Amino acid sequence: MGKALIIGAGGVAGVVAHKCCQNSEVFEEICIASRTLSKCNALKEKLDGGKTKVTTAQVDANNVPELIALIEKVNPDIVINVALPYQDLTIMDACLATKTDYVDTANYEPEDTAKFEYKWQWAYRDRFKEAGITALLGSGFDPGVTGVFSAYAQKHYFDEIHSIDILDANAGDHGYPFATNFNPEINIREVTANGSYFENGKFIETEPMAIKRVYDFPQIGPKDIYLLHHEEMESLAQNIKGIKKIRFWMTFGQSYLTHLKVLENVGMTSIEPIEFEGKQIVPLQFLKAVLPDPASLGPRTKGKTNIGCIFQGVKDGKPRTYSVYNVCDHQECYKEVGSQAISYTTGVPAMIGAAMVMTGKWKRPGVYNIEEFDPDPFMDALNQFGLPWHEDFAPTLVD
Amino acid sequence: MGKALIIGAGGVAGVVAHKCCQNSEVFEEICIASRTLSKCNALKEKLDGGKTKVTTAQVDANNVPELIALIEKVNPDIVINVALPYQDLTIMDACLATKTDYVDTANYEPEDTAKFEYKWQWAYRDRFKEAGITALLGSGFDPGVTGVFSAYAQKHYFDEIHSIDILDANAGDHGYPFATNFNPEINIREVTANGSYFENGKFIETEPMAIKRVYDFPQIGPKDIYLLHHEEMESLAQNIKGIKKIRFWMTFGQSYLTHLKVLENVGMTSIEPIEFEGKQIVPLQFLKAVLPDPASLGPRTKGKTNIGCIFQGVKDGKPRTYSVYNVCDHQECYKEVGSQAISYTTGVPAMIGAAMVMTGKWKRPGVYNIEEFDPDPFMDALNQFGLPWHEDFAPTLVD
Repeated sequence: MGKALIIGAGGVAGVVAHKCCQNSEVFEEICIASRTLSKCNALKEKLDGGKTKVTTAQVDANNVPELIALIEKVNPDIVINVALPYQDLTIMDACLATKTDYVDTANYEPEDTAKFEYKWQWAYRDRFKEAGITALLGSGFDPGVTGVFSAYAQKHYFDEIHSIDILDANAGDHGYPFATNFNPEINIREVTANGSYFENGKFIETEPMAIKRVYDFPQIGPKDIYLLHHEEMESLAQNIKGIKKIRFWMTFGQSYLTHLKVLENVGMTSIEPIEFEGKQIVPLQFLKAVLPDPASLGPRTKGKTNIGCIFQGVKDGKPRTYSVYNVCDHQECYKEVGSQAISYTTGVPAMIGAAMVMTGKWKRPGVYNIEEFDPDPFMDALNQFGLPWHEDFAPTLVD
Repeated sequence: MGKALIIGAGGVAGVVAHKCCQNSEVFEEICIASRTLSKCNALKEKLDGGKTKVTTAQVDANNVPELIALIEKVNPDIVINVALPYQDLTIMDACLATKTDYVDTANYEPEDTAKFEYKWQWAYRDRFKEAGITALLGSGFDPGVTGVFSAYAQKHYFDEIHSIDILDANAGDHGYPFATNFNPEINIREVTANGSYFENGKFIETEPMAIKRVYDFPQIGPKDIYLLHHEEMESLAQNIKGIKKIRFWMTFGQSYLTHLKVLENVGMTSIEPIEFEGKQIVPLQFLKAVLPDPASLGPRTKGKTNIGCIFQGVKDGKPRTYSVYNVCDHQECYKEVGSQAISYTTGVPAMIGAAMVMTGKWKRPGVYNIEEFDPDPFMDALNQFGLPWHEDFAPTLVD
């Protein structure tokens, strides 16, 4: 059918590339491009030999002229952006200049404010419409599949959805007392940022980690969940008609929180350099060097993730509850694509979103969030490409 | 009366020197000697102007000929050893060579085995006896005052002591989430070493921190206490006739233990260097650089220590219990001598022990532990020099 340009060569990009190759009827060719060509080539080596042709390229995703030159050279049907969130706008600019469809998995955040908001990308709506190209925003799991789940619930089970609880549980165990998947600074920001939820037309802020519940997850068991701000609430509040309340919950173990807190307490997460043996050293950088290498976590992480939504509302005048969720096994993911479930659950929907646009099912000029399209073909593809979902018509609710 | 040579210039040495100057009838002159002359001189500056004459000297306490030359030059009546425990034997050798009385506050440990045992110092018994000089071992608080308390209980209140519980509570709060008084490696060794207690003629080892109780300390309140090995149990087991059981307990707060555990978990307490930006860096050394400077703790530590003993036994055929303890206030100590209670409670008994020997009250050729002498004059001196004690004839017992 066509050709995709994948920008990025990290864990998620690896999953996207693997999954495109499993869907070679749609992806006859992919080009993997990132700043570090050797990473792209290492990925290509794993994929060569299948039906999908794989090429690689070097590109600085902050540099619009470089991106334009690459797109013109590769001439893809779509750009799949799995680079950094800071780079969404430069890549969208390059897509506009070359009239190429666009899909990403996380919304833009300016590097200095660290505030996730859709306003930057929604500002491209008219330009994408005029150019006749589609931008599909947030096609990962959350945001992404959670929006598809919401559209699916709306389409098939509810006249009106009154509340959505999004629950993201990671019960993976890497066997280390403490390790981070990526930058510990980002982990700390997650648990020290204010929470927020949507209620009756507006967002209400909470103190960091102030709202805690215990939820008994299917296939995982009871876990502590904490209310966080999360970006998909912003678009769902606009796109799910009649919605009154949206909350996002994530699991954190007590031991994980304790480790983060102690490291913060003693100053090991500080980004202010200190003088040490005549050298300026940033404590956080030194901490990263002491902690286990994130690359070592994949093969040793056991357990499952469970991410999904619980809906409450009315159908035919009667109250109704409904939940839909996916359970993903870290070790099975690693066996299949060499990444554990965190990257897997983000990369599979990115491939599916791109396929939706390429096959014309979701082709519509403009900038769209995922819940604005027909969820049915995406739901089918989830079952087909490794993220099967389960429904429950009498789910346990979050108080 | 006479002259003392103080070896060491740390926190405890500062207290000893201050206290000698408060007892100028006995200490007409003191010489403060350590490897770092500037520390000795800084101490001298604070003390000059009183009745006691203060001099200073530079000495390497690992070097016996240097120590002998210094003792011959200063010609003291006694050497007060408040240097490192590794240096007990070299200083005892120099005292033997110069026929000078000796007192210390902690028993010798070889630098490589980190095992506290009296056998090294007890091996000097015959030589000290032949030389006609006195060595008083362990004249701090614990060991030290705890031995005096035991001798006092034995002398005045019991025909037979069956059990001793030594309780060391530090309820000081420096206001930092975490800080250590000295080397965090030593703190970690404390909580990761096996515990032990004496029962029916032998020592029984326990897993580290395996035995925990809550004890309600007078003037402090309820605290978690953990059973540890501690050196005075070894001599008390020999010197208190009929003793069946001795245990040593120390308070540790949950937050302190959590911080230590996390820092150990993530590798920040390791002494194995790691490669960082082209340099070999020892994580523990870097941690020390990040933590608050121990010198900054003194002025800000609030709260009290409570250290003492609980005895159970018989008198005139009837069961009896008795406790005796001292309560010491960190801020009052700092106001008086510029050190908080940890150094204060060690330094005061060192001065008193030296005074006992110098005044002839405890002058007896040989090597002795503190409970082998008449406790009464030492008990009087504790009241006089800042460590008043309290008795309780119906104390709360440790289960």
